[in-house]
Amino acid sequence: MPGGVCDPEGFRAAGVASGIKESGERDLCVIASRDRCAAAATFTRNAFRAAPLLVTIEHLRKDGYLQAVVANSGTANSWTGEQGMEDARAMAVIAARELDIHPWDVAVASTGSIGSYLPMDRVEKGVIEAVSSLDVGGGLEAARAIMTTDTHPKTFCMDFRGFKVGGMAKGSGMIHPDMATMLAFLTTDAVVDPPELDGLLHEVVDATFNRITVDGCTSTNDMVLALASGASGMEPAKEELAQALYRACSELAHDIVADGEGATRFIRVRLHEAVEEGEARRAAKAIAVSPLFKAAVFGGDPNWGRVVQALGAAFGELDEERVRVKIGGLTVAGGGEPAEVERERLCAAMEGGEVVVDVYLGRGGADSEVWTCDLSQDYVRINAEYHT
Amino acid sequence: MPGGVCDPEGFRAAGVASGIKESGERDLCVIASRDRCAAAATFTRNAFRAAPLLVTIEHLRKDGYLQAVVANSGTANSWTGEQGMEDARAMAVIAARELDIHPWDVAVASTGSIGSYLPMDRVEKGVIEAVSSLDVGGGLEAARAIMTTDTHPKTFCMDFRGFKVGGMAKGSGMIHPDMATMLAFLTTDAVVDPPELDGLLHEVVDATFNRITVDGCTSTNDMVLALASGASGMEPAKEELAQALYRACSELAHDIVADGEGATRFIRVRLHEAVEEGEARRAAKAIAVSPLFKAAVFGGDPNWGRVVQALGAAFGELDEERVRVKIGGLTVAGGGEPAEVERERLCAAMEGGEVVVDVYLGRGGADSEVWTCDLSQDYVRINAEYHT
Repeated sequence: MPGGVCDPEGFRAAGVASGIKESGERDLCVIASRDRCAAAATFTRNAFRAAPLLVTIEHLRKDGYLQAVVANSGTANSWTGEQGMEDARAMAVIAARELDIHPWDVAVASTGSIGSYLPMDRVEKGVIEAVSSLDVGGGLEAARAIMTTDTHPKTFCMDFRGFKVGGMAKGSGMIHPDMATMLAFLTTDAVVDPPELDGLLHEVVDATFNRITVDGCTSTNDMVLALASGASGMEPAKEELAQALYRACSELAHDIVADGEGATRFIRVRLHEAVEEGEARRAAKAIAVSPLFKAAVFGGDPNWGRVVQALGAAFGELDEERVRVKIGGLTVAGGGEPAEVERERLCAAMEGGEVVVDVYLGRGGADSEVWTCDLSQDYVRINAEYHT
Repeated sequence: MPGGVCDPEGFRAAGVASGIKESGERDLCVIASRDRCAAAATFTRNAFRAAPLLVTIEHLRKDGYLQAVVANSGTANSWTGEQGMEDARAMAVIAARELDIHPWDVAVASTGSIGSYLPMDRVEKGVIEAVSSLDVGGGLEAARAIMTTDTHPKTFCMDFRGFKVGGMAKGSGMIHPDMATMLAFLTTDAVVDPPELDGLLHEVVDATFNRITVDGCTSTNDMVLALASGASGMEPAKEELAQALYRACSELAHDIVADGEGATRFIRVRLHEAVEEGEARRAAKAIAVSPLFKAAVFGGDPNWGRVVQALGAAFGELDEERVRVKIGGLTVAGGGEPAEVERERLCAAMEGGEVVVDVYLGRGGADSEVWTCDLSQDYVRINAEYHT
C-alpha cells in the first residue's frame, strides 16, 4: 500500500535523510494537508512524556485543528529538558515557515534514543528539503523516515464508501502501548469534527494499539495522531468512520508486532470467560509479556506450563479447576491437569508464522485479545548492540 | 561451603539420581534431622500453587514441627490435579517409612517442568537410596539434586555465637519471587519456637528473596523452608537469629541472581528518596525487569534512557525535574536532562561483573534495593531449547 497517508484527498508527504542518523538513512518526514484538518491524538501514559508530545498537546489544545506533521527518527528528544522543548517548538516553527502556515497547526514527533538532543541545523536543512519535495507519491518515503529498528515501513490505505483512510506507523522495540503506540499517523478525507474524531480515535486505539506488546516496555514517545481534511466532502456515519479507523489501526498494530525486534512468529493470546474485559486483557497481557513463554514459542515448543505460570502469577486467586488452555485450537490443559493431545499435531501448530493461544477462565462472559511476538536471540542482539 | 544444610548439629542429607531426569543427573534429595524441628516456610503467591506446596502447607499446619524434607528436580508436579496431590503425599509417606518418622513430619518440594506427572516408581527407588545414603557430608550432593538450569549448586553455612545456620537453594529462570523464591532450605541448630521462626523467616524472605528477579516470571513452585533442630542448646536473641537468617538468605538470593539463566553480569538497582518503601521497591523492580535495560547491560552500554523509560512507565505521574540517575556512581541524568559525564569512565563502569544503578526520586526518604542480572542471547537459547 504505497499510498499510505497520501491516499486520502489533499495530503502530500516526503521523507528525507537530514543527517540526524549517522547511517545516512532517511530520518525526517513531513506530512501536509491542503486544508486544515480536524485532529485528534492519543499519547503514552509513561510519566516522562517527551518534548515533542508536550508541544503537540499544546498545539492540539488550541482549536482541535492541525495541517501538518513533522517527525524524525534517530533521537527521541526525550529527557532533554528545556532545550528539548525549545527544539521541538523550533521544529514546528521551521516547518510552518516553509509550508506558509501557522506554527500551531503543526504536530511534532520524534523517535530514537532517549537522552540525546536534536541536531537543529540538520533538522532545519531536512525540513526545508522535505517541504520542497512534498508529493502525493511520498507516503512510503515518509513511512521509511520514521523507522528505527523496524525492518520495513508500515503503511495502510483503503477506500471506504465515499472517503479514504491512510496511515503509517513505526515501532519494533519498546512496544507495550498504554494509551497509544510508538508513532502512527492516520489521514482521512472524511468530514468529521475534532471532538467526534477524538472520541473515535480513543476508542479505536484502545481496541488496537493498546492490545499489542513486543517487550512490555512502554515508550516515552508513543503517539497516534489522526488528521481529517474533509476534502472528500463525505460525512460518514459515526459507526462507519469508527470501523474505517479500526481497520487502519488494526492492520498497523498487526504490522508492528509482526515486525517486533527479532520476531519470527506472531502470537495471538485470546482470553475468554473473564469477569470483565479489563480482567481478560490484564490476564492476556501477563501471558503476552512472559519472556519464558515467548522464548518457548521461538523454540517451537508448545510449553503450556509457561502459559499457566504467567496466568497464575497475574491473579491472587484463581480456580485452576475451571481453567482450560488451547494451543492452535488443541486443548492442552484443563481442570488443573494436562490434557491428552497428539504431540505431532501440537508441534505442527507451533511451526507456522502465527501461534494462537486460547485461555478460558470459566469465571464470566468477557474476553480480550492481545497480540505479541516471540522472543528470539535476535531481540537481545539488537538491544545489546543498539548503542547510545 | 560444602557443609550447607548439614553444617548445623544433627542434620544429614543425600542427593541421588533416581531417573526422573532422563540425563541421569542427580534429581532427588532428602534432608533429615535427628530431632523434630521448629519449622516455618513461605510460598509463592502465584494463584496456581503446585501440589507439593499444598501438601507441605498441610503438614506445617499440624503443630509447626517437621523432621525431614524430600525434594526432586525434573518435574514440578504442578498443574497435575488430584493425581499430583496423591503423588506428593505418597512422596512424604515413602520418605517417612524409610526414615521411621511420621509422614506429617515430612515436607515435600518439586521443581522442573509444569504439567508433567512424577514417575512414582523412580521416586520410590530414589527415596530409598537417598535415605540409606544420608550423611553429614551430603549437603552438596543434596544441593546438586535440586538443580534445573542452574550451572552450580548454591549452599551456605556459617557459625554464629553458639549456633550454626546452613542452607541450600536452586533457581535460575522463572525467578521473580513474590513471597518466596524457587526452592531454598535453611537449617539451624538454634533453639526457637515455630511461631517466632515463622515471623523471622517472613521478615527475612521479604528483605532478600522477594527483592530479586531474573525474568519477571513468578513460579508456581517457590518455597523457602527453615528447620530449627535446637540441637546446639543455644537460644539466640531474636535479633541475632534474624541477622543469621538474613545472612543466609541474602547470600543464597545473590547466588541465584548471579547464576540467572544466561547471566553475564549482576545488577543492583538502588532506589532512593521514594515516598515509602513499597514505592521504592515497585520502581526498582520496574527497572530490574526491563528486557531493554537488561539487554543494554549485556551489551556493556550505559543506556540510562532505558532506566528512565522503565521508571516513567511505572508511574502515572512523576516529576522528572527531581529525578537523578547514576550508573557506577557517575551521574548520567538529572532534572530531566542528560548530565555531562566522561564516556570512558562510564563505559568502564559497565565492564565489570557487577553494575550498580542508583535512582533518586526526590520525593521522600524511603529506599529499596532489587537485584537482577543482564539479559543475554543465552537466556533465550536456554528457554527455547528447554523443551517440554
